[in-house]
Amino acid sequence: MVNYPLKRPPQATHLSSVSNRGMDLENAINQTNEHYVDNGIAYIYKKPIPIQVVKVDYERRSAAKISEAYYKIPSTTDYNGIYRGRYIDFEAKETQNKTSFPLKNIHEHQVKHLDHITKAGGIGFIIVAFTKLDKVFLLDSNHVSFFYDRAKDGRKSIELSDFEALGHLIPEGYVKRLDYLKIVDKIYF
Amino acid sequence: MVNYPLKRPPQATHLSSVSNRGMDLENAINQTNEHYVDNGIAYIYKKPIPIQVVKVDYERRSAAKISEAYYKIPSTTDYNGIYRGRYIDFEAKETQNKTSFPLKNIHEHQVKHLDHITKAGGIGFIIVAFTKLDKVFLLDSNHVSFFYDRAKDGRKSIELSDFEALGHLIPEGYVKRLDYLKIVDKIYF
Repeated sequence: MVNYPLKRPPQATHLSSVSNRGMDLENAINQTNEHYVDNGIAYIYKKPIPIQVVKVDYERRSAAKISEAYYKIPSTTDYNGIYRGRYIDFEAKETQNKTSFPLKNIHEHQVKHLDHITKAGGIGFIIVAFTKLDKVFLLDSNHVSFFYDRAKDGRKSIELSDFEALGHLIPEGYVKRLDYLKIVDKIYF
Repeated sequence: MVNYPLKRPPQATHLSSVSNRGMDLENAINQTNEHYVDNGIAYIYKKPIPIQVVKVDYERRSAAKISEAYYKIPSTTDYNGIYRGRYIDFEAKETQNKTSFPLKNIHEHQVKHLDHITKAGGIGFIIVAFTKLDKVFLLDSNHVSFFYDRAKDGRKSIELSDFEALGHLIPEGYVKRLDYLKIVDKIYF
């Protein structure tokens, strides 16, 4: 049973405002992915947020309303798909920090997942948006693993200067809002 | 905010019993995928069910309870990941029918998605379990597209005999409950 929730305007809640923090980057990537799909360039999709459904009410025959559910920890990354015959997998995060990206924004199992993907012959990376600087970087999974391992004994973040030295600035545009495959072309093919 | 929903036993509802119909196949595939991941064979995961969250309540600081949400139509297939360097993508369905698989069980956009994947160099197929016969088949995306197109003018199902002729019986076992990669090895590599 499927309802079209856009008919009812979502109510503002504490959580929705918190989770909206990441919405700009997510929207930019989703719109770019739609462009890729529409033009047969790549088939990359955002995975739905995992939710444990506990209780469903049937008020009307046509609409199954979930009345009790909880967020679960994602087991992998946000995005995956296929591009130029290769498997591609990444996580996307925003930070308001102007000088570094705090590693607490990424789960350890996500770093491990990207590491597995890279070792299995796939393309794995993170996309990090420094919103106050209006800069978005792609950083390869191998570098992410390096900084994540280093964080166990020391610095718990990746510096902006590290992104500038080891990462790649993603070009922004109107149609392809965040053309990250341009960078993928350059560094993985 | 993440809660561990296993603490509270899920309440039986109409919908959960309906959606449990597909749980046996899903469990078998998920357990097999865990085996593949644990042994570094493949990284294939089930995507979460897409849910539109409308309202979230904070009864306690530690638990965000979703109190209003609705199911959405999935935009792609259930499973995807990487195996032997290739992108892999499939949909899994059960039927209690003993002679054919009704095509209404698969959305048109899922058939198109598998077709895109195959054309982009990925591996795409469906897994169909005939539960009353205890037989599980893998059928390549090209065959699925053929039967789906044919259904526009005629027969709205894929016959068991078609699965026997064009599909591949998936071996079942104890550790690898449904070793579908054995079939993938045979037909795609």
